Amino acid sequence: MHTNYHTQHSPFGAFASFTIGLHNAPGGFGIALGGPAAQNIYVGYRRKGSKTWNLLPFFKATQSNVAAFTGEAGEGDDEKTYRLLPENEFGRLLGWASDSWSAGAFSFYIHSPFDHVPDPVSLDAKQAHFYTAPVLAAALGYDNSKGDEDIELIFGMNDPQQPMRPLADSGEKGLCGFASGRSYGYAVTSGEGIRAMQGLSVLKQDFADQDGLHRIGQESAVIVTIPSGTARVVPLALGFHQAGVVTTGIESSYFYSQYFSSLEEVISHGLAMHAGYVLLAKKRDAELAASSLTKEQQWLLAQATHSYYGSTELLLSEGRPLWVVNEGEYRMMNTFDLTVDHLFFELEWHPWAMRNALDLFTDVYFYRDSIRSFEGETADGGISFTHDMGIANQFAPAGRSTYECRDIHGCFSQMTMEQLVNWVCCAVTYALKTGDSAWLSSRSDVLLACRQSMERRDDPVRALRDGLLKWDSSRCGTGSEITTYDSLDVSLGQARNNLYLAVKTWAAWLLLERAFAGLKLDGESKAAAGASERIASTLCGYFEKDTGFFPAVFEKGNRSRILPAVEGLVFPLYLGMSDVLDKGGRFGELLEKLEQHMTRALQSGICIDSKTGGWKISSTSHNTWFSKIAIAQHVTRSLFPKALSPAAATADASHVEWEQSEGTAPWAMCDQIHSETGVAIGSKYYPRGVTAFLWLAEKCRFAVNL
Amino acid sequence: MHTNYHTQHSPFGAFASFTIGLHNAPGGFGIALGGPAAQNIYVGYRRKGSKTWNLLPFFKATQSNVAAFTGEAGEGDDEKTYRLLPENEFGRLLGWASDSWSAGAFSFYIHSPFDHVPDPVSLDAKQAHFYTAPVLAAALGYDNSKGDEDIELIFGMNDPQQPMRPLADSGEKGLCGFASGRSYGYAVTSGEGIRAMQGLSVLKQDFADQDGLHRIGQESAVIVTIPSGTARVVPLALGFHQAGVVTTGIESSYFYSQYFSSLEEVISHGLAMHAGYVLLAKKRDAELAASSLTKEQQWLLAQATHSYYGSTELLLSEGRPLWVVNEGEYRMMNTFDLTVDHLFFELEWHPWAMRNALDLFTDVYFYRDSIRSFEGETADGGISFTHDMGIANQFAPAGRSTYECRDIHGCFSQMTMEQLVNWVCCAVTYALKTGDSAWLSSRSDVLLACRQSMERRDDPVRALRDGLLKWDSSRCGTGSEITTYDSLDVSLGQARNNLYLAVKTWAAWLLLERAFAGLKLDGESKAAAGASERIASTLCGYFEKDTGFFPAVFEKGNRSRILPAVEGLVFPLYLGMSDVLDKGGRFGELLEKLEQHMTRALQSGICIDSKTGGWKISSTSHNTWFSKIAIAQHVTRSLFPKALSPAAATADASHVEWEQSEGTAPWAMCDQIHSETGVAIGSKYYPRGVTAFLWLAEKCRFAVNL
Repeated sequence: MHTNYHTQHSPFGAFASFTIGLHNAPGGFGIALGGPAAQNIYVGYRRKGSKTWNLLPFFKATQSNVAAFTGEAGEGDDEKTYRLLPENEFGRLLGWASDSWSAGAFSFYIHSPFDHVPDPVSLDAKQAHFYTAPVLAAALGYDNSKGDEDIELIFGMNDPQQPMRPLADSGEKGLCGFASGRSYGYAVTSGEGIRAMQGLSVLKQDFADQDGLHRIGQESAVIVTIPSGTARVVPLALGFHQAGVVTTGIESSYFYSQYFSSLEEVISHGLAMHAGYVLLAKKRDAELAASSLTKEQQWLLAQATHSYYGSTELLLSEGRPLWVVNEGEYRMMNTFDLTVDHLFFELEWHPWAMRNALDLFTDVYFYRDSIRSFEGETADGGISFTHDMGIANQFAPAGRSTYECRDIHGCFSQMTMEQLVNWVCCAVTYALKTGDSAWLSSRSDVLLACRQSMERRDDPVRALRDGLLKWDSSRCGTGSEITTYDSLDVSLGQARNNLYLAVKTWAAWLLLERAFAGLKLDGESKAAAGASERIASTLCGYFEKDTGFFPAVFEKGNRSRILPAVEGLVFPLYLGMSDVLDKGGRFGELLEKLEQHMTRALQSGICIDSKTGGWKISSTSHNTWFSKIAIAQHVTRSLFPKALSPAAATADASHVEWEQSEGTAPWAMCDQIHSETGVAIGSKYYPRGVTAFLWLAEKCRFAVNL
Repeated sequence: MHTNYHTQHSPFGAFASFTIGLHNAPGGFGIALGGPAAQNIYVGYRRKGSKTWNLLPFFKATQSNVAAFTGEAGEGDDEKTYRLLPENEFGRLLGWASDSWSAGAFSFYIHSPFDHVPDPVSLDAKQAHFYTAPVLAAALGYDNSKGDEDIELIFGMNDPQQPMRPLADSGEKGLCGFASGRSYGYAVTSGEGIRAMQGLSVLKQDFADQDGLHRIGQESAVIVTIPSGTARVVPLALGFHQAGVVTTGIESSYFYSQYFSSLEEVISHGLAMHAGYVLLAKKRDAELAASSLTKEQQWLLAQATHSYYGSTELLLSEGRPLWVVNEGEYRMMNTFDLTVDHLFFELEWHPWAMRNALDLFTDVYFYRDSIRSFEGETADGGISFTHDMGIANQFAPAGRSTYECRDIHGCFSQMTMEQLVNWVCCAVTYALKTGDSAWLSSRSDVLLACRQSMERRDDPVRALRDGLLKWDSSRCGTGSEITTYDSLDVSLGQARNNLYLAVKTWAAWLLLERAFAGLKLDGESKAAAGASERIASTLCGYFEKDTGFFPAVFEKGNRSRILPAVEGLVFPLYLGMSDVLDKGGRFGELLEKLEQHMTRALQSGICIDSKTGGWKISSTSHNTWFSKIAIAQHVTRSLFPKALSPAAATADASHVEWEQSEGTAPWAMCDQIHSETGVAIGSKYYPRGVTAFLWLAEKCRFAVNL
């Protein structure tokens, strides 16, 4: 494993990250950004009295800032003031809820604990403070117990946005640290052996006032002395804060702003509760470490979880919680085809978030359309849901996404059927998993509308239905519907007659069968069962006996091979619906054919990249998506273990290499990867990788019983 | 005159600028920035039906943004969608309160009116809305009266920060335009022939929803159709807004936020009051155009005024107005050695702002020190004031600046004597000019403390006083005091025995003489008169009869020649104190020697740059400051017109060339210029150039009677 990659360190629901880890690159504090911030971070140690800091490579060396003030060119002698720790002198360990670096006796930690968060409406003030504080529990450590000289540790930064302010200036005498305006900052608890520095350079301070500070300086630091003969781990809080209304369209503020009125309160809380946060992070770390996942799998899930939390945003609108997961670099809000993939992670940790998003889709971000056949006939359509709810803290108007356009056949077209199926899959899975049948019951009208809408998009005439989407939404104009796989070739991008979407639709019918049964809607349940069988039968009919594959699209002689053929199986698998997954049961033929499909697809040169050995979601595209690979891996390992060729079974190392490659590591977790080069093609700084959480269900305490 | 330079377009007191004008460079909306923002601005026209826009060069061409979403490389064919207007096809006219571009029948205007603003505490709601609205009155115009085809006009932008939101989405159906979150935006009034566009590219829109928008796009625009046979000027509002507390140390919000609760309100107001704002701007433009200033002088004053307003910030703290002028790129707040130079401009337009800043210096940003002689003796010092009050919306602790440090002899040392003299000059000039003797009377204790402090810094022992600063503040530690000319060589940088500071101190004593007389403190008035005569006599003693010059520093055989020798004369000149400026009067000898000094200094190779012909404030430094040149010009032209060599008299063209040079034009008005190259060395995006306002006093309605 390399150490050279960025990771987002993010409090729960603050849409904020402290991004760090890439070598010789800036990062630091960012709120509501689509990528890393641009602050240089100084972390390291020196012998007290030495002029040379030993620093982790968390910055890009800059020219002296002196010149701008003095009119003279900088002398560029800053390098003498530090020594970059070379790669062979430090280690890095990314945990599920932590990140730590060590170099001999020196260590640096960032804990970003996450937990089973109760529904925000039920939190008492103490819980709310603990769970929603926009703060990270970092720490500087040094074991100087055997040393005979004092050691100084530094945590500092160069913020090109603006000079920071000493927190002591605002009367917070207990805090030794700095803040950038009212937005973000860091501090340790004041005390003996602890001092603040600020100036044009903190590595070589030329100028200082009577406090030892130069407040116009863009660089700031806290310095901690570790006396010889002692070992210490010094808590360091990294905090964020934004007050007031932060969104438009639907006006809302950060949920935490009810409990924290200032950055100082956040940081003070972070230090006061530091031990509790560290313990919680260690608990998560231990759970992942104790799992049966390989080291590579653990790293992938950890990196993905870090980026997921960086995109989470818990808001307060008209007194009620409002949950948003932002779409990484794109910052679209609650993109539904991500929501459905976050389902499994969120149902474990904060299932109310899923219900919250579904409610907003149901109440605001839905629409009713008419539909058009390939031949140009039109008919009434039905309900569906928007692709997203807005972008970059700007909510879209009701019933509208920011993404979907008219009159096109590829990227940016409508995802009407996809999001309709996603609503069904999310809603029923949420209700069945949590037991919240009251909620599902309150939404039974929507379920019924979804059923009707799904049927009509197959064909308005009952007799002509075969289960597949064949009618496009009128919102497409002259274009046609697409799927979440928008940027891939037609093998996955086109919605009509699409294998991936068909299997997911089959799963949605299975879920509707269950849901209607639970709602005592027996006729509807039976009809749903029939629909699932009809689509299964249709699917089996498209199986190519000569090749042993399903085609990706049942049109125009398409012969692409895709791994998301099995994506829809994840829902019955997750819910433990062993009856429908019984190879001798109702869907035995479909399962058998899908197993054949996967067995053949998971071969080098088809859906295993012949160069890197990584999984390709389509045989005809080099664009492959980690989040979707993770689902396909989970389904395959759980249901079709024999389909795993040795190369396919051990591909996780390739996926780690991709994520840590030069073209991907700068943006933390990335989803769209070029399978030959490992370079991120898009979907950077992305939350969707938490589909890897499903892996834990394979053999650990999260396991479902099949 | 060139057209290729950035100008700040800034509402009064909003610490906000719409910066535009530099060719092939971004700019746009910025709040609280130290330089231009980074938005591409699209302004131009096309024949309706044409695919090619004719655009002013307000942007840097970017790669298509499509690739990030689609995973494909952009095709880079955007250039076919526009034609950059070449320099010979458009003109630009910078007015005092406007900026306009025209290309044939097309025109684009930005009005940033300023006015005599009454004390904010006295404003009624209507006045407060009018004067403090953070909005600019721009306009798109086209004379299609003789055209036989419809013309489309565009105002659009590419904002790399985030996609903007259509203002119609927030229910503002009267506004056709876009906003970036809650911070800034633009709109025209909705109506026939007006439409909004948004997408990955607005010059070549590939994707659009049913509104013709693609809300994930970073590019947005309003398009206005000008029918053939008509001529129209379409009002366009450019607005800013920031709610809530925006500062630290002293907590305050923008004054305007009392009257405007949202950006939409600001923009709506800007459109409703557009005509009034345009009229006001035209009034200012006409005043400047009608003045006796040359075209070059008019441009310099206009450019300086634009940048001054970009740094102004009217806050509300605990229910009271709080005035800040930020220091350009450095963003230090109310830097006192800038305040004193803004004095003349502010006393004309908003004298209460000067009083407000003085009150904050007097009540919060003052200190008392001890002093140290060159030989190392120490004694009680007295009162002085901090260099500044904070930086980048972060107020410093009471009695502290962000700039001043200990133990150094150059840049970043203490400016104790300089700011002490500045307080006296500002306070008395304010009171005498405005007639606010009640205020001065309420501050008589401070005046008395200043008098004592000035005396003691000369020498604590009365008998040893000669009027010059010789004792440094103990705040210097082992260092020594400097002047505002911090980044120049010792000729102007060192405070002790400094010619510039001595003449300014002489002026301060003259002002104290007047002030004490007005306060019926006759003994003190007489003593002040004596002090001014003492320092004048001392100064005359340092005149070099052999060279006809004063040395810049009365130490170590210094032979630098400086133009700020006469800077202190600006105060009696401004106040019409003809007695003290009478060459046959009390200070005849000093005046005669200063005239000799200036006559000799204003020669090529001394204080006239032999390469560019511009004024150099020191003969021994290539670093020269426009704001200080402007004062020296004013004093010289008013008092010593014979000192003006022909080269010196016509140097304004050189100063314009500096400001419009490649190394300076990107940062609007810049103060520190390399006299040989015109390149800005520092002090970019800077407010201090409004000292050029004094020029209007030379022969126009602002004239003072001498």
